[in-house]
Amino acid sequence: MGYNLLKGKKGLIFGALNEKSIAWQVAERAFEEGAELVLSNTAVAIRMGNIEELAAAHGSVVIPADATNVDDLNNLIDRSMERFGGQIDFVLHAIGMSPNVRKGRTYDDLDYGFLQKTLDISALSFHKVLQCCWKKDAITHGGSVVALSYIAAQRTLYGYNDMADAKALLESIARSFGYIYGRERGVRINTVSQSPTETTAGSGVMGFDGLLDFANRMSPLGNADARDCADFCVTLFSDLTRKITMQNLYNDGGFSNMGMSNKAMAIYNRNLEDCRDCQ
Amino acid sequence: MGYNLLKGKKGLIFGALNEKSIAWQVAERAFEEGAELVLSNTAVAIRMGNIEELAAAHGSVVIPADATNVDDLNNLIDRSMERFGGQIDFVLHAIGMSPNVRKGRTYDDLDYGFLQKTLDISALSFHKVLQCCWKKDAITHGGSVVALSYIAAQRTLYGYNDMADAKALLESIARSFGYIYGRERGVRINTVSQSPTETTAGSGVMGFDGLLDFANRMSPLGNADARDCADFCVTLFSDLTRKITMQNLYNDGGFSNMGMSNKAMAIYNRNLEDCRDCQ
Amino acid sequence: MGYNLLKGKKGLIFGALNEKSIAWQVAERAFEEGAELVLSNTAVAIRMGNIEELAAAHGSVVIPADATNVDDLNNLIDRSMERFGGQIDFVLHAIGMSPNVRKGRTYDDLDYGFLQKTLDISALSFHKVLQCCWKKDAITHGGSVVALSYIAAQRTLYGYNDMADAKALLESIARSFGYIYGRERGVRINTVSQSPTETTAGSGVMGFDGLLDFANRMSPLGNADARDCADFCVTLFSDLTRKITMQNLYNDGGFSNMGMSNKAMAIYNRNLEDCRDCQ
Amino acid sequence: MGYNLLKGKKGLIFGALNEKSIAWQVAERAFEEGAELVLSNTAVAIRMGNIEELAAAHGSVVIPADATNVDDLNNLIDRSMERFGGQIDFVLHAIGMSPNVRKGRTYDDLDYGFLQKTLDISALSFHKVLQCCWKKDAITHGGSVVALSYIAAQRTLYGYNDMADAKALLESIARSFGYIYGRERGVRINTVSQSPTETTAGSGVMGFDGLLDFANRMSPLGNADARDCADFCVTLFSDLTRKITMQNLYNDGGFSNMGMSNKAMAIYNRNLEDCRDCQ
Repeated sequence: MGYNLLKGKKGLIFGALNEKSIAWQVAERAFEEGAELVLSNTAVAIRMGNIEELAAAHGSVVIPADATNVDDLNNLIDRSMERFGGQIDFVLHAIGMSPNVRKGRTYDDLDYGFLQKTLDISALSFHKVLQCCWKKDAITHGGSVVALSYIAAQRTLYGYNDMADAKALLESIARSFGYIYGRERGVRINTVSQSPTETTAGSGVMGFDGLLDFANRMSPLGNADARDCADFCVTLFSDLTRKITMQNLYNDGGFSNMGMSNKAMAIYNRNLEDCRDCQ
Repeated sequence: MGYNLLKGKKGLIFGALNEKSIAWQVAERAFEEGAELVLSNTAVAIRMGNIEELAAAHGSVVIPADATNVDDLNNLIDRSMERFGGQIDFVLHAIGMSPNVRKGRTYDDLDYGFLQKTLDISALSFHKVLQCCWKKDAITHGGSVVALSYIAAQRTLYGYNDMADAKALLESIARSFGYIYGRERGVRINTVSQSPTETTAGSGVMGFDGLLDFANRMSPLGNADARDCADFCVTLFSDLTRKITMQNLYNDGGFSNMGMSNKAMAIYNRNLEDCRDCQ
Repeated sequence: MGYNLLKGKKGLIFGALNEKSIAWQVAERAFEEGAELVLSNTAVAIRMGNIEELAAAHGSVVIPADATNVDDLNNLIDRSMERFGGQIDFVLHAIGMSPNVRKGRTYDDLDYGFLQKTLDISALSFHKVLQCCWKKDAITHGGSVVALSYIAAQRTLYGYNDMADAKALLESIARSFGYIYGRERGVRINTVSQSPTETTAGSGVMGFDGLLDFANRMSPLGNADARDCADFCVTLFSDLTRKITMQNLYNDGGFSNMGMSNKAMAIYNRNLEDCRDCQ
Repeated sequence: MGYNLLKGKKGLIFGALNEKSIAWQVAERAFEEGAELVLSNTAVAIRMGNIEELAAAHGSVVIPADATNVDDLNNLIDRSMERFGGQIDFVLHAIGMSPNVRKGRTYDDLDYGFLQKTLDISALSFHKVLQCCWKKDAITHGGSVVALSYIAAQRTLYGYNDMADAKALLESIARSFGYIYGRERGVRINTVSQSPTETTAGSGVMGFDGLLDFANRMSPLGNADARDCADFCVTLFSDLTRKITMQNLYNDGGFSNMGMSNKAMAIYNRNLEDCRDCQ
């Protein structure tokens, strides 16, 4: 049912929790396209979710790792390469979490210990994955790395809080390390900036439902869902995109280049009528 | 009442119609800052509006020119330099018009003769002004040129039609000629991307009122008005911004870097529940 | 030897001249991926090049059309749909030419008749293709349109002249029409911003060889060639990128996000000491 | 000798070390424009440099603070407000340092303790300044905050290392907090992306001289120096830019929008001749 786009390729996928996860969908599509995979997440997330079922169904394995912990990563990479009998062809980083958001600390009242965690989990973990792979020469020449991002890295969205800063940092790391990996190892590194997506992680953001509706009506093709993202990631892991690197690529139905759509404006204007005195 | 920021400077200002015009406000602020000016517009616009009063009040003159017509421009520049007794220090281009918008031709049904006019009036006129000045060496070393633009050059807004393409072209001309003028003559060229503004020109855009309200609630500082734009242009014409060139500068209360504000979302969400089936 | 990514899909490809052309490579890759094609170019270009051989080798046809001429386009689309027995699934626009560049008119001495031609051929032709298709409802729901662009649309390159402005206009048209096509017809429209490429068209640009070397050393993965571009276009025409629209996508080995590479700097620094007085 | 642009305004300036510092030049220009200032830096930097002389010459004071330390910042803000007898009108953040750069750790071999320090000093300190001011309501309605940045936040430069990521984070903080400060307090927050500048900090970057020359020849107006930056900052602190916020503004002679200049290409090509076999 696939195109064999990833036939013979080996991939390492971080961040799948359950079938709503983008990473889960990417894993499923990668299997369909002929890839062999190792799935990873924290021990807690593995217990909370059900990725072991996904792995089992495809003869794959789950290896726990805290992606902020270099020892865990080194162990994960070693075991993955053992299993694959060699280098890794592609990596997906789909990891993000903000203790400030979880604990309801607003952006003008951040806890700086939490902020450090937000950045470590959501952005620096990406550098750590890349640097650990670098030191072990773990990624194939011609390989491909993708991290998931969001347009909050470029534009401020009410309620997205310090995750916006984490995503900006994540995208910068993709560029900075993408230069070195490209030059020395022929490996490309990109971020995919995805529509707001109804995952367990996404839904935690304040005012998520309204935003989802707004984004959907603003986007000429509507919001991209997790499956759409997975399809796109497959092309980025394939051999058909070998000169694309250091980019932030919007998979968002067109949202990023919209100023105002008639569909969104129709809702806005209708409500405005009732509301001339609104603050 | 000014700061003498433009004391002794000579400026040429295109596109003032009446006191609502951004160009009119720029002229007023430039006078206050000590500049000497020549105002220009088409003969028709001069009759329709009242810029001769503005000129008269400040001992200035109005010289008619169709900015798409090279002969008119050559005459205008010659007469301006005569009047100033030398070169021009700054230029404002605030010219835009779309016959397609005026005649109600939507973007999927453009008249190509009209489109050519939209581009000629709203964008190529800027190249013509710059090239005519270039050939006459009419702009002072250290001089400054500004053209007014709009975010439609980057992001699609329902109803803005072929003016979006004209603004993208205008901004490109600013970069392309900015390189040459900078390198050879020490002249800087920038565009100012302004909030939607209630001018005679702006109000012609379909759905303008709703858009104005949306932009205002999205922008943390609210929309910039014509006077705000004039203040900013004064700084760009002054000697305090001598290394800024080839830029598109947003004077928009922050709109350009907003994804969603709580004020706009409050309106949007207001009756969203009643409206789940809305197209 | 392909993946069947375009199996059953029908495509219309503008702008192939000979085997060095990007459009030629896209056509070859599309054939390999199972597509049925109509190739088009001007009558002159068809005679100058050899795309009839390409078409013949794949049981395809060449239909001449001047893409600035609406009648020609209407005829082309009618005949293509007849041949395909229905709608078109994907379109490639790879058309660009500047009479100012050809005639050696520099950017500070443009001929305005030529400039109008540059824009008409290189940018407005894209709107015409899209509008003619729109009026005939010629593109399938879920279809995909790509136009080839260049980073000169964002950043000024010595010698690229008015083609920079044409590319900026082209990219704006992709956004403007992409919004409408997305919303109403589920069709996506993107531009691919390609590395400088040794095609018959590319090589005409002043100082092309030096630029090619510089771009190659700046890009961590080196310049993307025509074949790389074709691979990427295949993914954009496939069903795996259905939510990507209104984007300008860099297929450039990373060039667009580089400020300075050590490889390029090594050349630059080499004799810099001998050259402190260089202009 | 100024324009009185900052007459009656009170400013807080972080990061001046000696007369080569951009922050020093901003302070000098702010004094010239009529401002009253408090200067701040770490105790070590105050000893190393000579800002106490600058302060003394203008009847101003230096208050030491480690901008990563919230207690220090709270003390600094309290004492500044006491001195000013009220709120602060403008703030300059010119703070950046990377232990990884200092210790010669390359980007593929970062020390993560150092990385955390790079981010804390160069980016999070900006959030801390803003949050401490926020909680004390220390910034005037209509006030203005500027942080200094560099184009490495957008494009990778060989040798700039983890400072690139720090600048990307810094610019994101400016947007994120700019939204809240704008909406609630009428305060604008921007970053100025400055040409490479021969300061004590700048000169530490690997290969700085070559880069400086390249940037200078690429920029149509040449590199902006510290004094140019100070002039621009003065306009941003003044009342003439009250609707500009959440922007990253390039004060760089045009570098950011250049792809290739003939001056830089001349050097490159001359060296290339000698060097056809170079790696």
